[in-house]
Amino acid sequence: MGEQKILEEKLEEEEKKDQEVLGQSTVALAAAEAREGGDELFVPPLNFAMVEDGVFRSGFPETSNFNFLKTLKLRSIIYLCPEPYPEENKEFLKSNGIRLFQFGIDGSKEPFVNIPEDTIREALKVVLDVQNHPLLIHCKRGKHRTGCVVGCLRKLQRWCLTSVFDEYQHFAAAKARITDQRFMELFDISSLKHLSTSCTGLEKSSVA
Amino acid sequence: MGEQKILEEKLEEEEKKDQEVLGQSTVALAAAEAREGGDELFVPPLNFAMVEDGVFRSGFPETSNFNFLKTLKLRSIIYLCPEPYPEENKEFLKSNGIRLFQFGIDGSKEPFVNIPEDTIREALKVVLDVQNHPLLIHCKRGKHRTGCVVGCLRKLQRWCLTSVFDEYQHFAAAKARITDQRFMELFDISSLKHLSTSCTGLEKSSVA
Repeated sequence: MGEQKILEEKLEEEEKKDQEVLGQSTVALAAAEAREGGDELFVPPLNFAMVEDGVFRSGFPETSNFNFLKTLKLRSIIYLCPEPYPEENKEFLKSNGIRLFQFGIDGSKEPFVNIPEDTIREALKVVLDVQNHPLLIHCKRGKHRTGCVVGCLRKLQRWCLTSVFDEYQHFAAAKARITDQRFMELFDISSLKHLSTSCTGLEKSSVA
Repeated sequence: MGEQKILEEKLEEEEKKDQEVLGQSTVALAAAEAREGGDELFVPPLNFAMVEDGVFRSGFPETSNFNFLKTLKLRSIIYLCPEPYPEENKEFLKSNGIRLFQFGIDGSKEPFVNIPEDTIREALKVVLDVQNHPLLIHCKRGKHRTGCVVGCLRKLQRWCLTSVFDEYQHFAAAKARITDQRFMELFDISSLKHLSTSCTGLEKSSVA
């Protein structure tokens, strides 16, 4: 009987998880909110885009973006700048139970770019851990630092370099940097390939 | 005792569902494939991007893109051109159990653009039905026809027009058309708001 109770509780948990998963779909959200007949407009952050299930990218989130970000039901944010996070953003994270992972990468311009490979690798470990999803990766403009992290993720997903660069340039546009592209090309994913098996905790999903 | 058995089975089902959900994540896929040590490179279609959970966009998929598309585990494709689908693409759909929804929209150039609002609306109904996910929306270059469908979806998600246009221009780049933007601005989502409740079948996820 106690065993059955445990099973019932487990089942409830699983059902909740499913609802959360469905709840993450903003298509679902559109339907739900259309039903509520709300008419407030959402303002995504600069350079906002979806990278993968549960992984988003953008420029720095302003207070005007907070209501939109709420719809993503974020569990974590990866912030790639060394500057301290503004109070209002900290407040937003706190009141929405979002965990902040800060990796302070200097946004220095060419020809003085020096992207710390180890820091990008640490950030990628956080991205690969589905326990941190839904997750937003952002820097200041969502072009260079964010672009390098996403580009290295694409390499891990075995995208050809042409497509990795095309996506990078898509966001960096006129500000695209050869040095960023060289960094992505030379970035060694072998250690992450190994780590990703232990980091992502996806054994159960990939054993098939 | 029988009741407990039912609960155990339900629990297994829930866990399977979770695994399927995780299985759709290409981050998960990266981990799984890294483990297999495969080193084939994937070639996403021209202008490929993720729109939402289970919704992707791109230009016309070539045979070189098929292996990448397999990783998306697509259930449906929305094809927005009037030209018949090539044999090799039909073959790909058949062998991967992907359903094709064709909405033949003429890709005519300005100043002769005439975007059929009803056709876009029908395409959106297919997009909003999660039963069709994972789903790929594509036309020829993934700029204008695909951009209009995604732009109208963003309106339904209550994105401000500035962000809708920014995303459209992101993909259309130098080929951005004022006529497409005017179409998106004037597109009436009210009928879809109503339909989305019945189309998306998301009641269970939004009752919360």
